[in-house]
Amino acid sequence: MAAATTTTTASYSTLSTKHHINNNNNNNNITLRLGFLFKNSVTVRPLSLPSSRPTKLPMKVFATSAATPVTKKTSEPNSTAVPTVVDVDLGDRSYPIYIGSGLLNQPDLLQRHIHGKRVLVVTNTTVAPLYLDKVVSALTVGNPNVTVESVILPDGEKYKDMDTLMKVFDKAIESRLDRRCTFVALGGGVIGDMCGYAAASFLRGVNFIQIPTTVMAQVDSSVGGKTGINHRLGKNLIGAFYQPQCVLIDTDTLNTLPDRELASGLAEVIKDPDAFAYAIKRSCENKAEVVSQDEKESGLRATLNLGHTFGHAIETSYGYGHWLHGEAVAAGTVMAVDMSYRLGWIDESIVERVHNILKQAKLPTSPPEMMTVDMFRSVMAVDKKVADGLLRLILLKGPLGGCVFTGDYDRKALDETLHAFCKS
Amino acid sequence: MAAATTTTTASYSTLSTKHHINNNNNNNNITLRLGFLFKNSVTVRPLSLPSSRPTKLPMKVFATSAATPVTKKTSEPNSTAVPTVVDVDLGDRSYPIYIGSGLLNQPDLLQRHIHGKRVLVVTNTTVAPLYLDKVVSALTVGNPNVTVESVILPDGEKYKDMDTLMKVFDKAIESRLDRRCTFVALGGGVIGDMCGYAAASFLRGVNFIQIPTTVMAQVDSSVGGKTGINHRLGKNLIGAFYQPQCVLIDTDTLNTLPDRELASGLAEVIKDPDAFAYAIKRSCENKAEVVSQDEKESGLRATLNLGHTFGHAIETSYGYGHWLHGEAVAAGTVMAVDMSYRLGWIDESIVERVHNILKQAKLPTSPPEMMTVDMFRSVMAVDKKVADGLLRLILLKGPLGGCVFTGDYDRKALDETLHAFCKS
Repeated sequence: MAAATTTTTASYSTLSTKHHINNNNNNNNITLRLGFLFKNSVTVRPLSLPSSRPTKLPMKVFATSAATPVTKKTSEPNSTAVPTVVDVDLGDRSYPIYIGSGLLNQPDLLQRHIHGKRVLVVTNTTVAPLYLDKVVSALTVGNPNVTVESVILPDGEKYKDMDTLMKVFDKAIESRLDRRCTFVALGGGVIGDMCGYAAASFLRGVNFIQIPTTVMAQVDSSVGGKTGINHRLGKNLIGAFYQPQCVLIDTDTLNTLPDRELASGLAEVIKDPDAFAYAIKRSCENKAEVVSQDEKESGLRATLNLGHTFGHAIETSYGYGHWLHGEAVAAGTVMAVDMSYRLGWIDESIVERVHNILKQAKLPTSPPEMMTVDMFRSVMAVDKKVADGLLRLILLKGPLGGCVFTGDYDRKALDETLHAFCKS
Repeated sequence: MAAATTTTTASYSTLSTKHHINNNNNNNNITLRLGFLFKNSVTVRPLSLPSSRPTKLPMKVFATSAATPVTKKTSEPNSTAVPTVVDVDLGDRSYPIYIGSGLLNQPDLLQRHIHGKRVLVVTNTTVAPLYLDKVVSALTVGNPNVTVESVILPDGEKYKDMDTLMKVFDKAIESRLDRRCTFVALGGGVIGDMCGYAAASFLRGVNFIQIPTTVMAQVDSSVGGKTGINHRLGKNLIGAFYQPQCVLIDTDTLNTLPDRELASGLAEVIKDPDAFAYAIKRSCENKAEVVSQDEKESGLRATLNLGHTFGHAIETSYGYGHWLHGEAVAAGTVMAVDMSYRLGWIDESIVERVHNILKQAKLPTSPPEMMTVDMFRSVMAVDKKVADGLLRLILLKGPLGGCVFTGDYDRKALDETLHAFCKS
């Protein structure tokens, strides 16, 4: 850790969003209420300014944060000199997220987390020409003891499989990397998930660092330690919970991102696109808060996955990579909201609001035309949230911001939603 | 956990064995002294007899336990009714090891550790015809809510690879197992390692249970949570530290074990073969003690691997499965002892003693004739104990029982040992 986390008792505004936790094992029903989440707090601080006052920020489950006006902003600027730091509090597995412009030009941020002499950068054919040299330079400048290898994987969700993962192990073993090495994930969510799982498994676990270069990875997948690969029958079915040493988010990497990737990322943030750095920071804070309370998703953490059960079914059935993850989650969110409405759990204004936000972000609001009810049912049956045969879903309930993770719902509503969004 | 662990302050005899710990990061040198290990203790208790007095047993690093007379035995019998229980103390990941005859006829031992409704038994073509029905029966009798699937893998170290591991994932996913399922490893070390790694990775981690059926697995590999698969360039290079819910050792399963497997197991125990149950218990106690102090092998745990660096080089170069693991470790132990002698760290009587014990157990005391110095060097370079390019070895030092894990040794002694045991 770069620095110890300090927490002040700064006041914060009340949010209209509310979440409950009320874990009832009998019906697999979890309701979230925001107040519970304040038990621990996320501390945001500018780096290297220990005398500055950390600001305690209120917690929101980010999937619903779109509906919530931002009531308090921290005042520190995202300058090139002083990155914002969000600490993920997980005891001896805690780590910092560095957020800011030009961070890849600050070698110390990475080098302080490299403990051995060998580094393996895992990246892909799209990102390598743009940033690999820069990352190697950041790792080695003024630090001649460190040698860096790299493995460049094909780009895309369809390569997030065991065959491609083996290329990382092959490279690590052929390069004779040892337990003191560090794996660095340089790329989007696919690279982060694969590199993290490789790091979790190589020699039963080596250090790793996340350098996410897409909106999706910066606001979501690089934080929280979920790693893994896809199986032909379902997304992310093979993997590990494994936390990085740090996450370094250089917002400049978004400058090279295609428009479609930007929109896909927005499905996770649902924020004004002219405030990326702020949106990223808030998303990281939100996620860090939830992860620190429920690292291995025994309940609360599942609520981060609004729209994902429907979304994963789209990605798996349509073929990995045809739709971006964020596009599938956008359509999946609409379906989850539709089902919540059919259950009578939310009013129509929320349905409309979600539609409008996603359309503004140029994201899909319905699944691909080829999707059938049976395709959804078949893939959703192997979803990780199934427990003893019962599919649990993240749904909205009550006023704006209410969110439940539950297997206790009328199956008829699920059927109706599937039929409403599929031709057959 | 079946029952809470209680610890008494029963007295124990002094051992002639001694080990030191003195972790010096500068020279990667760890010396073990037994006294340190008493900080935590292993508790042995007969099951279901909470009023009986647990006996605190002294700790020994098992690789050297052959040389140590057993100074204190517990009095409880290994009857069919009351298994011996050794608790592995790892906080919230603690678990019991049940040891005894006829334990597969006691369904409650397994059923108390099954929390969901679905079980996947992972076994192989040799063990399935002998014990699969019995295990399925033990899991389901009087418990109609539980359904059991099984996957039967080909038998042998050469199948401990990613392709075979994928068969476990395929079966689990096709059977629509969910996060509440339990994987059961029924077989030897290969099955235990693969099933454990599959359980660690499936849906980012599900419960698992070890039912080891070989001496090797019962005294060593089923305890301590090391799981993984081989890479063509080295043993166990891909895996996870992942602890089981329980280990069930039915000593009756040894009745069907071929003589060669028995001898290979003895290379790990090095005990009188007419006292298997006792030897198994003592080995489990020793290993549980070390694992509870150093779960992820930052130092102390490495000393359990005397002979393994040389042994893994034999297994990898000679082809996985041509020699049993215990055979390779026997030859590797002789080489480690030879090198310790060349360094002047032990006297000749220890060298002779190790030779004699292994010969009595009909185990090899030199590597296969095809092994060359270069083969050893090439495989040992990717050993998990290499740190920053330096190969650390487990060697003997001082009077009988002294053991060090160190990279601080004269390279000439290693060269001389390799040349002494290889024709070219």
